[in-house]
Amino acid sequence: MDFQIKASDLEQAHERIKPHIHRTPILTSESINAIAGCELYFKCENFQKIGAFKARGGLNAVMCLPEDERQKGVVTHSSGNHAQAVSLAAKMCGIPAYIVMPETAPEVKKKAVKGYGAQITLCKPTIEARQENAHRIQQETGAFLVSPYNDNNVIAGQGTAAIELLEDTDHLDAMITPVGGGGLLAGTALAAHYYSPETKVFAGEPDGAKDTYLSMKAGEMVTVPNPSTIADGLLASMGDKNFAIIRELVEDVFVVNDEEIIAAMRLIWERMKIIIEPSCAVPMAALLKNKEVFAGQKVGVILSGGNVDLGKLPF
Amino acid sequence: MDFQIKASDLEQAHERIKPHIHRTPILTSESINAIAGCELYFKCENFQKIGAFKARGGLNAVMCLPEDERQKGVVTHSSGNHAQAVSLAAKMCGIPAYIVMPETAPEVKKKAVKGYGAQITLCKPTIEARQENAHRIQQETGAFLVSPYNDNNVIAGQGTAAIELLEDTDHLDAMITPVGGGGLLAGTALAAHYYSPETKVFAGEPDGAKDTYLSMKAGEMVTVPNPSTIADGLLASMGDKNFAIIRELVEDVFVVNDEEIIAAMRLIWERMKIIIEPSCAVPMAALLKNKEVFAGQKVGVILSGGNVDLGKLPF
Repeated sequence: MDFQIKASDLEQAHERIKPHIHRTPILTSESINAIAGCELYFKCENFQKIGAFKARGGLNAVMCLPEDERQKGVVTHSSGNHAQAVSLAAKMCGIPAYIVMPETAPEVKKKAVKGYGAQITLCKPTIEARQENAHRIQQETGAFLVSPYNDNNVIAGQGTAAIELLEDTDHLDAMITPVGGGGLLAGTALAAHYYSPETKVFAGEPDGAKDTYLSMKAGEMVTVPNPSTIADGLLASMGDKNFAIIRELVEDVFVVNDEEIIAAMRLIWERMKIIIEPSCAVPMAALLKNKEVFAGQKVGVILSGGNVDLGKLPF
Repeated sequence: MDFQIKASDLEQAHERIKPHIHRTPILTSESINAIAGCELYFKCENFQKIGAFKARGGLNAVMCLPEDERQKGVVTHSSGNHAQAVSLAAKMCGIPAYIVMPETAPEVKKKAVKGYGAQITLCKPTIEARQENAHRIQQETGAFLVSPYNDNNVIAGQGTAAIELLEDTDHLDAMITPVGGGGLLAGTALAAHYYSPETKVFAGEPDGAKDTYLSMKAGEMVTVPNPSTIADGLLASMGDKNFAIIRELVEDVFVVNDEEIIAAMRLIWERMKIIIEPSCAVPMAALLKNKEVFAGQKVGVILSGGNVDLGKLPF
């Protein structure tokens, strides 16, 4: 199988963004290993700039723009981590960023985006309103629209977390990530494919937004109308560029419900003393629900992010 | 000045406990540096076994017991991290542990102590009831009473966190710890004295339990009746062995109130995505309140622990 994103694309993405991101630590926990019945290596992207792996893809996508295109700026619509990633990347490149956010986005996220000097346009909290506004701004300014996941440069950027995880561990039997739009999962699957083909790649997905699970079963892209889950970073439907990679390279997608996500989130908070957001707890919940698949194995877990509203915790 | 605890005692303590503890990471945060106006190196003892630095002192004290004394077991009174430290040490040495805890201790802490196989005796939440019960058990069983702080082996064990912090950084201008009973502060001061005498040692102390601050001012040990603070790990009064070291080697003790402690705790949770307990936030609060003292300096901050009841957060 031949993929549009080559090993060299992943390597160049890594070289490009490396000076601007953190090489996040890999933590382990004996007590969680005992509970899970396997050996877990947690790649802490919750400690990444902007508090999530999305800094990688956003930065790579913006830095890949040719100099003349770049000057017109970048635009995206996002209520969350991608908005911050694009804002940070634009700030680093000294170009304007236009961010469309739903009026309902948490104040703390609006503040963070403003903190990077981006211009915010608020809109109704529907996917149509978000897309319309982003499109209008794109027309008016000539800014480049940075997709949160359905973009080869974004996918290559997200794959750099798995490159580091593979470099900093000895022979992993498996890696597992959450899946929403599929950027992190596709990037991770490509990294394993090129650098450690014996490492199987899995994903965890919330029951209330299980379009990847259903798509894998159906062998074609399926969408879930009105997705709903506490894992608010995983509401997006998978992109077609992502699916082309995921369907070929991902071993399995495990579905978990909100209760299981909250329990896994609490376990990691209590045992590891680190803060992860609900979306980030999804792979841990999947591991605990499918212990027999991973029994005795060495498993890399990508902890995707730690941006939670401390005033609204689920426990 | 000649101290009872020599450099060789610190070194032997480190050699002794090293195989049984985590060498905890040192984290940095650009955004917190910008807020504090100095360069901070956080030694993450919240990631230590039992979730706090106390594993070091407890382990060293128990391992220092002669083989025949050891077999009768160990006893202590503590509502928190020291109870877990002694329980863990006893479990590792295969000897009984008797822990006196106030009835009011959080369920999660009782559970953790039981998890290490220790025997719990509940008592009224007064220091007298705790001491009486521990003394009675000591008489009945012949177990060795492990003081939480007023013990040279405990102090030497706590000092090993600062040894690692000094080894893993380049020339710190200062180190800062919280102070309750004074084990961590005294151990840190000795480590600086022997290995990096140009590094000044400071402490943060809660306003509601500022006996160390008052003792330093008075030049003799002063106690605070009915201490009260959200930093529940720092309620203890300083020990005399601790004071003998602290009065000679500690540069200054800064007092902070509960509001400042909560704000510092939240700052570290939000910016660093790590979980610290209120007591652990006291040095950060002290740094923010005394920026002029540390302006532009390289400061090592010992993050003492991360054991919080997630159901009862102050924000």
